[in-house]
Amino acid sequence: MEDRTQQEQASPAVRKRVRDSFDLQGLMSHLGARITHIGPGRVHIALPARPEVTQQRGYVHAGATSAIADSAGGYAALTLFDEESDVLTVEYKINLLAPAAGDHLEAIGTVLKSGRTLTVCGLEVHGVQADGTRKLVANGQQTLIRVDRPTA
Amino acid sequence: MEDRTQQEQASPAVRKRVRDSFDLQGLMSHLGARITHIGPGRVHIALPARPEVTQQRGYVHAGATSAIADSAGGYAALTLFDEESDVLTVEYKINLLAPAAGDHLEAIGTVLKSGRTLTVCGLEVHGVQADGTRKLVANGQQTLIRVDRPTA
Amino acid sequence: MEDRTQQEQASPAVRKRVRDSFDLQGLMSHLGARITHIGPGRVHIALPARPEVTQQRGYVHAGATSAIADSAGGYAALTLFDEESDVLTVEYKINLLAPAAGDHLEAIGTVLKSGRTLTVCGLEVHGVQADGTRKLVANGQQTLIRVDRPTA
Amino acid sequence: MEDRTQQEQASPAVRKRVRDSFDLQGLMSHLGARITHIGPGRVHIALPARPEVTQQRGYVHAGATSAIADSAGGYAALTLFDEESDVLTVEYKINLLAPAAGDHLEAIGTVLKSGRTLTVCGLEVHGVQADGTRKLVANGQQTLIRVDRPTA
Repeated sequence: MEDRTQQEQASPAVRKRVRDSFDLQGLMSHLGARITHIGPGRVHIALPARPEVTQQRGYVHAGATSAIADSAGGYAALTLFDEESDVLTVEYKINLLAPAAGDHLEAIGTVLKSGRTLTVCGLEVHGVQADGTRKLVANGQQTLIRVDRPTA
Repeated sequence: MEDRTQQEQASPAVRKRVRDSFDLQGLMSHLGARITHIGPGRVHIALPARPEVTQQRGYVHAGATSAIADSAGGYAALTLFDEESDVLTVEYKINLLAPAAGDHLEAIGTVLKSGRTLTVCGLEVHGVQADGTRKLVANGQQTLIRVDRPTA
Repeated sequence: MEDRTQQEQASPAVRKRVRDSFDLQGLMSHLGARITHIGPGRVHIALPARPEVTQQRGYVHAGATSAIADSAGGYAALTLFDEESDVLTVEYKINLLAPAAGDHLEAIGTVLKSGRTLTVCGLEVHGVQADGTRKLVANGQQTLIRVDRPTA
Repeated sequence: MEDRTQQEQASPAVRKRVRDSFDLQGLMSHLGARITHIGPGRVHIALPARPEVTQQRGYVHAGATSAIADSAGGYAALTLFDEESDVLTVEYKINLLAPAAGDHLEAIGTVLKSGRTLTVCGLEVHGVQADGTRKLVANGQQTLIRVDRPTA
């Protein structure tokens, strides 16, 4: 079932909208993060483990782990909005369950409830080894608000 | 009262311990963050607003805002530990109250409860203009756990 | 300063609006809770410690502690709304800092940010002994949404 | 899969330990809550919708919704502990996704990560109609700590 969900792609227009917005996030490119899946109500973001994203023990910093989780949830919400809408994070809560180690992290944002004004997402971050082994390293929950897209 | 608190410094040994650990956090230097105050149970971290830390609208990304808040809280907890102890974030929750704009952000972590195993911190992030005007842009709460310091 | 804030009362119309709504909350009277202060952006609720509100060790249950904190925050938000508005809790997070013991608990909800749609409150719960000694037993943060008041 | 999980029962000794502790929670019986399932790492609690548990609009109060979610998560954690251990809630966060209506609510606590000291649970609360129709009304995440069981 996991595989089917991952294969379900959002429409080309939605995927373009998400990628265009992601490309405007200076933080994501500065961290080295990239979007790896855009499905309806579900977005994945990968972050290679590099010295630039570590905490004092060499694991990925909770702040970097949270940053990709926050963006994954935000874009998951955006996939269900019309093109006149943008999304802002209201708040989120995240538990760091295990040292964030591996070849890279994968954050998965999934819409739990999409309302007219507010959207609630579940957030997961997995540590992925070079051989594909995965471990849940963080789990969270996020509230987002729909706002009008700024006009160019 | 705010000023007196800000002027109260932790001991030189504690300040050194905090700075040494901070210098090991690759993420903090990659973001351009620096520690600006180390008091007993209270740490400030400043983050200049740069294109490298933005979200899609040019404000500071919630992930960067959270990252300095998380580190400020973690080091606030560490100031109250003995030198054999290190600290890990268990979880945190943060509300983004206003667009994170300004010359720089200032995160303030303050210990609310310091227990034998767990510490709870309050987190604040202010947007600071070039003229010194301040606005609260994020507010949060964090749980941390004391762990043994890894031996060199 | 604490005392001045506690003495600052909301207008009679606002206090009536809050009390009328509180009286409709079956849970609050079933728990034995009562409102003890209604100021602008700040509401206090007291809960006597009774066997009806305990957990397995005889302390006040986290659920009862949270219930009065949630109501205190909700009514703190309501004091700043016009009379056409009602309030609903979007989410909250609470840390249980110490066993909730004492003669009674006092929950304090304080508005941190009052926006057009969303309000964010800080939540505190104190355990109060018969001699007036107080201890912070829980600390939290809450997001609320303004909605139209149902017409009678 | 949902059904198989629900049918998997914890051992009789664990079920007895959970029920004995639940029976000591004055709040649960005062609210009218009862445990409906005890599986390994998963506990269900049902709460009939009654005037005694409502907020100002007649829905179940966020505080009552949270109380059964908190207990469900706490007992889910307890099912994985040895008999010398008790559990305390460190913190939780809960989103109220929809008006909590129905014949009764069902809270489900599920262990996400069981560590030596800390356990993290996912919390769900469903509104259940008399005809069995279910709707997710709240979703949360909880951190718990293992403590020694008090000696009698």
